[in-house]
This record gives sequence, C-alpha cells and structure tokens, in this order.
Amino acid sequence: MGDSTKEKQLAAQEAVKLVEDGMTLGLGTGSTAYFAIEEIGQKVRNGFSLKAVPTSARTEEQARGLGIELVSIDDVDSIDLTIDGTDEFDDDLNLIKGGGGALLKEKMVARITDRQVIIADSTKHVERLGAFKIPVEVLPFTVNYVKSMIDESGGIGHIRMNGDDFYLTDEKNYIVDADYGLMEDPYEISDFLNDIEGVVCNGLFLDLAEIVIIGKDDSVVTYEREADDEEPDEEEGTEERLFA
Amino acid sequence: MGDSTKEKQLAAQEAVKLVEDGMTLGLGTGSTAYFAIEEIGQKVRNGFSLKAVPTSARTEEQARGLGIELVSIDDVDSIDLTIDGTDEFDDDLNLIKGGGGALLKEKMVARITDRQVIIADSTKHVERLGAFKIPVEVLPFTVNYVKSMIDESGGIGHIRMNGDDFYLTDEKNYIVDADYGLMEDPYEISDFLNDIEGVVCNGLFLDLAEIVIIGKDDSVVTYEREADDEEPDEEEGTEERLFA
Repeated sequence: MGDSTKEKQLAAQEAVKLVEDGMTLGLGTGSTAYFAIEEIGQKVRNGFSLKAVPTSARTEEQARGLGIELVSIDDVDSIDLTIDGTDEFDDDLNLIKGGGGALLKEKMVARITDRQVIIADSTKHVERLGAFKIPVEVLPFTVNYVKSMIDESGGIGHIRMNGDDFYLTDEKNYIVDADYGLMEDPYEISDFLNDIEGVVCNGLFLDLAEIVIIGKDDSVVTYEREADDEEPDEEEGTEERLFA
Repeated sequence: MGDSTKEKQLAAQEAVKLVEDGMTLGLGTGSTAYFAIEEIGQKVRNGFSLKAVPTSARTEEQARGLGIELVSIDDVDSIDLTIDGTDEFDDDLNLIKGGGGALLKEKMVARITDRQVIIADSTKHVERLGAFKIPVEVLPFTVNYVKSMIDESGGIGHIRMNGDDFYLTDEKNYIVDADYGLMEDPYEISDFLNDIEGVVCNGLFLDLAEIVIIGKDDSVVTYEREADDEEPDEEEGTEERLFA
C-alpha cells in the first residue's frame, strides 16, 4: 500500500465522520471516493438511515453492493452532504475534476449540495490550477469543433481516447481535455468553455467545495472555505435578484 | 399568401444577392431560410460553384434536392456567408433563435461565419428581446435539473413537448424554453444558462449577426452592425491574448 492510498483512506475516514443519520448524501466517483463509500456502507450496516445520489455507474454499483439506498437527482430538492475526490485543488478550494470522466453528474450533485466535502491525498494541493488538464464533456458530433475553439483561444485541446476509440462518458459523450497551463483566472476560462456550443460541462469546480480534507502522511489536514462564501442561500438570493 | 410570407421572400431574395461564385455558405433552417435556399439552388443551376454547410436535417434534404454541394462543418475552417432566419432581433442585432429546434448547428455555423446575414419578416423586430422564450438545448437526463435551475434563478422553464412526447432535436436532445420576460441584460442570462450542467447551447445569438434584412410590406430594410463590431479577427485576437 503506497502513501497516497493511505492518505486517501485517512481523508475518507475523516470525511465520513460528518455523515449523520437521516441524511441525503451525494456519492462521488474515483479511487478516493471509493474509500468513503465503503465507510458509508459500514454506517448503513450500523443502522444509519441514509439515501444517496450516485455520480456514476461505477459508484452506483459499489453503493448498491453495500446496501446503500439509492435515489435519482430528480427525486431530491437538495443534498445534505456530498463526499467526492478531486484531481487538483487550490487555496480558494477551487478544483479541477473529471480525470475519471464522471464530471457531469459530479457537478450537478455538487451544485445542489449544502455541504460539499472534497477528499484527496496530499499531492492534489496546488498553488495554481492547471497542471492537470481541464476535462470538457462534449456532444460527440461537436468534438472537432470544440477542440478547434479551444485551440484558437490559446489553449490546447486533447481529444481523450480509449485505445483506438473515443473515450465515452456514462452519457455516451466525448471528452476534450483542455490545457491552458497554470491559470491566472479559472473563472474566465470556465465561462469561455461553457459558452462553446456542444459543451455539456467542464471540470472546473469553482465556489462549490466547502471543505477539503487531505491525508498527509499519518494525519489529516482540513481546509475550510472563508466565511463569506459559506451561505449558499445568500448566493441563490443574489441570482434571483439578477433575473426576477 | 399572407404579408408575412411575402416579406420573408423579399428578405430572402435580397440576402441571396450577397452570394458570390466560389463561396462556402451556411444554410439556415426555418420558413424564411427555406426561401433563401430555393434562391441559392437557382444560383447553382445558373452555374455558380458553391459549397454549403446545412444546419439541420430538413435543410440538408432541401439543399440536396436542389443540387447544392454539401459539406460538414468539420470539413471547413470558416464559412464566407450564412443566411438564416430568427425569431426575434433587437437594434443591436442580437437574436433569439431556435423556435424550430435547430439552434445548435445554427449557432456553430454562425460562430465560424465571416458574414452572418439574418432574414425575417417585419414582425421579428423588437425593442427588447424576451417576448419569445429562449430555447435551451439540454441532454435528456438533465431536463428536470435544468428546468429547476432556471426556475430558481427567477425565470420559468417550459419543457418543450411534441404531443405526449418530449420534443427531440436533430441530436436527440430535449429543449427547455426559458422565459425571463423582456431582458435588460441578455448577456448575463446567456452566461447563466450556459453554465448549467447539461446545457448544450442556448438560443441567444449575441454579437453574431452582421446584417439583418427584413421585408416590410413591398420593400426591404437592411440593418447593419455598428463598425466597432465588424472585425471578427479583432475579437479572436483579444481571446488569444486572454488565455495564451
């Protein structure tokens, strides 16, 4: 067992302490979320009544095997707590996710979650996002168009492959991994990507994580978002004032 | 023949005067674009050598029947001239399109077109966009999620139906028609819609039309974009400076 695996497990154990009886949970996807889901299965066996929205076919299968009650995102108005992994996070708790290809459901679930908890090993902490390319999920027929838009904007688009075939997401879409190098302004790049026709979502998770827990050697380190951003209801109110 | 039909025909005839031998064209979709495509077919029969990118299955079928050579958007770097209709346009030549459901390819084609010409009858000119709902193309499984995001933001999302079934686009996606009333800032609303996970594109065509030609009774009226915005290369340069 490598250090990184141990760190992932420590972070997962710490995060699952936040799970309370009766909660609706979001279940992330990936090698770190895997450990959290195993721990959540233990809570269910210990008598906790939990409902969970899975973020991928893989996670759904794992959770079903553990006897966790599953619900669709359409069946819930909000999610109390989501535990998910990340490919990178910075000091603002902004993330790049989607190396595993599950970014679409992960981001939908994060958006309606009251408390988004991210778990990772210590290597995922970066000063500036962008060493990891930004996964961009696109409709298949738009893949060359989206790549050329990214290329023309100053980035480099890499169409993700699976051997000789296009990599397929759970929804049968393709992924373009967008390399903009280390980013000065990820918000601007996220807006640019979302504006491209055919883009379903991108892997920049901005202002979504509330807590990041990492394993660091034998202990855990917890990062919390600044108080200003801790009131999701306030943000929602702002949006309503904008358009209503 | 109603006045509106005559106005559409007059606008289409005027727009097709801009077509030159050897051009790569974009072919719009809808009852007004229909007349332009018929006129373009006449140009081909008169000996013009033209290539065209269609924006829907309907348009592809019509153009093929007229002997117009068709190419895919992936086969061209740019398009010289596109003629398309609109559901609304304002004095800034911003549009709401997609009532006919072909917004995705129409917007991709518009984005890579040097000269985007919009044709319409006189009823399409509005002081402020928004009496017509904004069509939003979404992945089928995200339709309820997108609707609820629109509703929470102060708009009203209407899932487009076709009898008892969901309305299906050419790409087998669904449409949510978003009603924000008459909009003060369509740019802000477009950004908000594009940021929602599962949204493939929306029907606000901002800064894309260069010329709008309408039929008005027995004559045509032409609106041209202000000189400032007439250099698409300048915009592209700005984007490169942003991200490179």
